[in-house]
Amino acid sequence: MELARIEGTVVSTVKAESLKGRKLLLANLLNADATATDNYLVAIDSVGAGIGEVVLIVRGSSARQTESLGKVPTDSSIIAIVDSIELKGAIVYEK
Amino acid sequence: MELARIEGTVVSTVKAESLKGRKLLLANLLNADATATDNYLVAIDSVGAGIGEVVLIVRGSSARQTESLGKVPTDSSIIAIVDSIELKGAIVYEK
Amino acid sequence: MELARIEGTVVSTVKAESLKGRKLLLANLLNADATATDNYLVAIDSVGAGIGEVVLIVRGSSARQTESLGKVPTDSSIIAIVDSIELKGAIVYEK
Amino acid sequence: MELARIEGTVVSTVKAESLKGRKLLLANLLNADATATDNYLVAIDSVGAGIGEVVLIVRGSSARQTESLGKVPTDSSIIAIVDSIELKGAIVYEK
Amino acid sequence: MELARIEGTVVSTVKAESLKGRKLLLANLLNADATATDNYLVAIDSVGAGIGEVVLIVRGSSARQTESLGKVPTDSSIIAIVDSIELKGAIVYEK
Repeated sequence: MELARIEGTVVSTVKAESLKGRKLLLANLLNADATATDNYLVAIDSVGAGIGEVVLIVRGSSARQTESLGKVPTDSSIIAIVDSIELKGAIVYEK
Repeated sequence: MELARIEGTVVSTVKAESLKGRKLLLANLLNADATATDNYLVAIDSVGAGIGEVVLIVRGSSARQTESLGKVPTDSSIIAIVDSIELKGAIVYEK
Repeated sequence: MELARIEGTVVSTVKAESLKGRKLLLANLLNADATATDNYLVAIDSVGAGIGEVVLIVRGSSARQTESLGKVPTDSSIIAIVDSIELKGAIVYEK
Repeated sequence: MELARIEGTVVSTVKAESLKGRKLLLANLLNADATATDNYLVAIDSVGAGIGEVVLIVRGSSARQTESLGKVPTDSSIIAIVDSIELKGAIVYEK
Repeated sequence: MELARIEGTVVSTVKAESLKGRKLLLANLLNADATATDNYLVAIDSVGAGIGEVVLIVRGSSARQTESLGKVPTDSSIIAIVDSIELKGAIVYEK
């Protein structure tokens, strides 16, 4: 999984039927110490994540493995809201 | 998923049976603010996207999860036409 | 999917049973305007592609989705021979 | 699979149901000689790996193939603790 | 698939049950002309490959498609030993 911060949203009217009602969040991938990278992706939320929160993103077919996303054509899903990150013995991020 | 802009088409006569009748679109991957990158891929359309439109592309096995693409041997499908993108509180793209 | 040009072949005697009788083609990945990149991969042919031809390559589990490749342990298959590519209104490649 | 060293942990309260009780480990991807790279990912442990240990990480749908992780929405799992690495005839890492 | 040369081995005692008895080989990914790159991965052998040999590696879910590897949690498998590579009309590698 990858660490990311929710930075925005994507709005779409014309989309695959199974995406209807799903929030499309713009996520900035993070380094291990929660600093920003230049990379973004669009993920579907399964845990109620909001703008500014640090989350865990799962990709590929595993993105369809959560209870609520089985038939959604997604390759990137938010599966956890991160409370804290400990790296080499130090807390590098806390919510 | 990834943001992309439809920039062209690929024409093929000799192809896998299940690709027949499918439009092969050349998509330029975009940054989060809808500016162009150097990367392109060829995607199959499932929502009626046209040249110039900004879309969402899903990759991998999830590209075969939409209602109409179950048996098509694709690893990249267009699943949404983007109306707008909001990044860090600003509208960075509007159709 | 990705554009590629067939540039060579790989010969192997000792290989997985289900690869027997399959041609292993060396494919050079192309930019959107059909110019060469530095990247190559080895793909299995499902459409009768020959040396020099521009093709479409599908990767991942989708590479096993064509009629003839269901049980072959491949992650890269040639699923179309490209006739032409139109990019930003101009024909950038024609067979 | 990829070599990695466990360097930290990620704590999350709000997460997918099937992640509950799973340890989320921050893993630093390694070169073949066990030296560090700049890349990290978050993996789920299936073998009891601890901080500082060198492990093998499996990605993609294969990350759900171990006995205990079948329904967990993970794309990165730790499937082995590495005792030693031999590269070009020399032992480059020993536990 | 990707060309690689077997350069070493990884030894592990504590590992997923289904990995027991499997050889973990350290493979150096190669360019199309069989010269080395900086990239390595750890693959499971399904064809009896040995140190120094040039092989074909399949990745992702396809790595579990050979007869013997169906339930092994691997994302990289060796599925062929390469005898020769022909690139742009010249033999660039011969066993």
